[in-house]
Amino acid sequence: MTSTEPVGYAAQALAQLLPDGVLTTDPDVLLAHSTDHASSCSAGRPMALVRPRTTEQVAAVLRFASAEGIPVVPQGARSGLSGGANAVDGCVLLSTEKMTAILGIDVENQTATVEPGVLNAEFGRAVAEHGLYYPPDPASYEMATLGGNAATNAGGLCCVKYGVTADWIRGLEVVLADGRVLDTGRTTAKGVAGYDLTRLFVGSEGTLGVITKIVTALLPAAEAPRTAIAFFSDIAAACETVTEVMRGSARPSLLELVDSVSLDAIGRHRDYGFPPGTGALLILQSDDAAHADRVLARFERAAEGRGGDVLIAEGPEESRLFLAARRAVGTALEHEGTTLSEDTCVPRSRLRELVVGVQEISRRLDVTIACTGHAGDGNMHPTMVYDRTDTRQVTAVQQAFDEVMALGLALGGTISGEHGVGVLKRHWLERELGPVGLDVHRSVKAALDPGRILNPGKVLDHF
Amino acid sequence: MTSTEPVGYAAQALAQLLPDGVLTTDPDVLLAHSTDHASSCSAGRPMALVRPRTTEQVAAVLRFASAEGIPVVPQGARSGLSGGANAVDGCVLLSTEKMTAILGIDVENQTATVEPGVLNAEFGRAVAEHGLYYPPDPASYEMATLGGNAATNAGGLCCVKYGVTADWIRGLEVVLADGRVLDTGRTTAKGVAGYDLTRLFVGSEGTLGVITKIVTALLPAAEAPRTAIAFFSDIAAACETVTEVMRGSARPSLLELVDSVSLDAIGRHRDYGFPPGTGALLILQSDDAAHADRVLARFERAAEGRGGDVLIAEGPEESRLFLAARRAVGTALEHEGTTLSEDTCVPRSRLRELVVGVQEISRRLDVTIACTGHAGDGNMHPTMVYDRTDTRQVTAVQQAFDEVMALGLALGGTISGEHGVGVLKRHWLERELGPVGLDVHRSVKAALDPGRILNPGKVLDHF
Repeated sequence: MTSTEPVGYAAQALAQLLPDGVLTTDPDVLLAHSTDHASSCSAGRPMALVRPRTTEQVAAVLRFASAEGIPVVPQGARSGLSGGANAVDGCVLLSTEKMTAILGIDVENQTATVEPGVLNAEFGRAVAEHGLYYPPDPASYEMATLGGNAATNAGGLCCVKYGVTADWIRGLEVVLADGRVLDTGRTTAKGVAGYDLTRLFVGSEGTLGVITKIVTALLPAAEAPRTAIAFFSDIAAACETVTEVMRGSARPSLLELVDSVSLDAIGRHRDYGFPPGTGALLILQSDDAAHADRVLARFERAAEGRGGDVLIAEGPEESRLFLAARRAVGTALEHEGTTLSEDTCVPRSRLRELVVGVQEISRRLDVTIACTGHAGDGNMHPTMVYDRTDTRQVTAVQQAFDEVMALGLALGGTISGEHGVGVLKRHWLERELGPVGLDVHRSVKAALDPGRILNPGKVLDHF
Repeated sequence: MTSTEPVGYAAQALAQLLPDGVLTTDPDVLLAHSTDHASSCSAGRPMALVRPRTTEQVAAVLRFASAEGIPVVPQGARSGLSGGANAVDGCVLLSTEKMTAILGIDVENQTATVEPGVLNAEFGRAVAEHGLYYPPDPASYEMATLGGNAATNAGGLCCVKYGVTADWIRGLEVVLADGRVLDTGRTTAKGVAGYDLTRLFVGSEGTLGVITKIVTALLPAAEAPRTAIAFFSDIAAACETVTEVMRGSARPSLLELVDSVSLDAIGRHRDYGFPPGTGALLILQSDDAAHADRVLARFERAAEGRGGDVLIAEGPEESRLFLAARRAVGTALEHEGTTLSEDTCVPRSRLRELVVGVQEISRRLDVTIACTGHAGDGNMHPTMVYDRTDTRQVTAVQQAFDEVMALGLALGGTISGEHGVGVLKRHWLERELGPVGLDVHRSVKAALDPGRILNPGKVLDHF
């Protein structure tokens, strides 16, 4: 689709299949919807944006797109960090942001059924009113949708105890590439009837189908967490503390590492009162009152044995302040320049090597890299901060980006713990999967989307 | 393959690709390996049994079978209950029972890498020596292999707190139908690089590939459980107690329901000292000392409020006795006649309707049905006990079997919580999945096993 004429015709034809207002071709709106939060990824030019309100409307869009061979890019809140929701040339952007109903909360069975456009934080508040808890909490939880969380298998700060989004999804309604509607999974606690298609769609980044309904599991409300923080002059000592804490039988509900580059960045916006010369910070929480004393004591012992200074939050307000510091890192780094965030996850025991290795790459290539993340899971977000108008920096950042991923793989890790592949890491996915893995991915993709209309070029390169 | 001549030729040709002793065509050995534990399922006649010791030998078998179009039936310990490991005519039985190495236990990262023939219980003991714990505990854990557990996504008694086998598998090595070797997943705590192929193979009952290596997650060793037992005259009251207990924020590590038919059966072998006239028994455990008081108190309150009598085990020995009673049910029922075990899982709040409905079916069709199972997950095993030489009973049992599955589906449940589909429930799978779900299953199967050589006729009928 190089000319604009046939695009205009297709958009008109599609608009006629949908109620008024569902489709727009307004250039400003299209531009605003053409990228997600991965500022370094390029995007194509969409032909239209549709914001359906029902499964049937989603199906109508996909039936049309399949018949016409038009690419469809599913979108949630576009808070992703890998360009997975970026437009491709001539595509229909299919946003689920208008499908915002919480269809049911089943208190007795601790499940809920929701539409994909429900915001993560909104859902959390809705279930809390029933004394229930939905754990997954990606950093973007106030703006991210549950559909996007499901499509990317989003992680977050709670994963060290509660696992990732996939662990909280029991079933899905998915519109397939050809417009057929598929129900996967179950509402029950267990179930092995057939293949685990739910998990196949979760994390597939919109390349296999469009999620239109989600059945989640829930827990009884967690207790207010208790929080401790430890200051280290040496980040390696912080990493060793993480490994030691995780040996314990009682799990913390959060265990985050913040490095000095991140601390400097947040310190420029607000004084959190952290001691000067802090090389790294660990933040730990326990949301289980019966175990919290034990978890905090273990943390204190482990940190102090490695030269750390430990501070136990005196109440919920101080707890929130510590967490606010952690949550401020992303935005603070964005104020420093253009950011490119890695998402390496390594076996926990290799965390020290990862962090030290990232520092070495940073020094050698003269690239600012903040190294903060979900230390308890070995999942760090080394984030390059640079001036995108400086070609030396751009080149060096690209090399640092590749070197960090190579380091993660060499340490037995993965190129993505929770952000996904999108367009950002397509080439690296091939390296992680190997030729057989890649081939099986292509077979599965071809089986479910033979016309290759769903989010083409995402996850799998040239496919 | 109707004549025996070409079969003999193929077996000879295959034997030449393998070391001595890996392949056998001994008719007695073949017969003994032709069925799993589902006594009511028919089996075909295999042409050979292979027991490879390496991934390369598995690959050689599959390359040969693919080239020759010979069906291959993967087998673990054949302790399955759905006929999933039963021979089909002219097949090669591929048993992984000789692949028994524990390749590594990573204490720091709480993971292990094992071959598929390692027994579940043996593995549990091996990791316990390192202070670690592998939760999945199907009833057959002393004889079942980890490969079989993975292929069927086995459940067990611990699921109410710890989830199913799939929740403890991070990665696999799988030999594909054409003999290529695929690595899936990761060793890290999190990872979203590509589709979740691990979960696709787990629970696929040998229809998509042969699992030759498993990376498991582990936990620090759990504490010795505390146990309570409650006697009810009325099974409905026991079901309501389950729902009430599961509302609590602290989870029991086990919550089992044993009905009066089961109690009568185990009572004929050993006197457990249960009060006469007991209509149902609940057994609860908590393996978390910090919460056990609270969990047991909640159980006591819930049970006594519904007319139950509660007994708290006085020590580990009494705990073991209560558990032994539960674990004795399966064998005791098999002593009473031929058994056919259901595996319905319903939303927990519908447990009462399931159990009462099964009793109604039992009475109306005059079929003995024991109703025991993992009540905390809503996963019950209504088990028909009958005389297979009595044609009236055989017919009535078949009808009862179907009616129980229909009841489970009508209550929002699934036809299989943990046993799998095998040959036993192929027709019912179609009903649970619906036409689109079935079609997607077939597409996935065709993508991974285009020659349809892997466990044909299992899970998916006529495929």
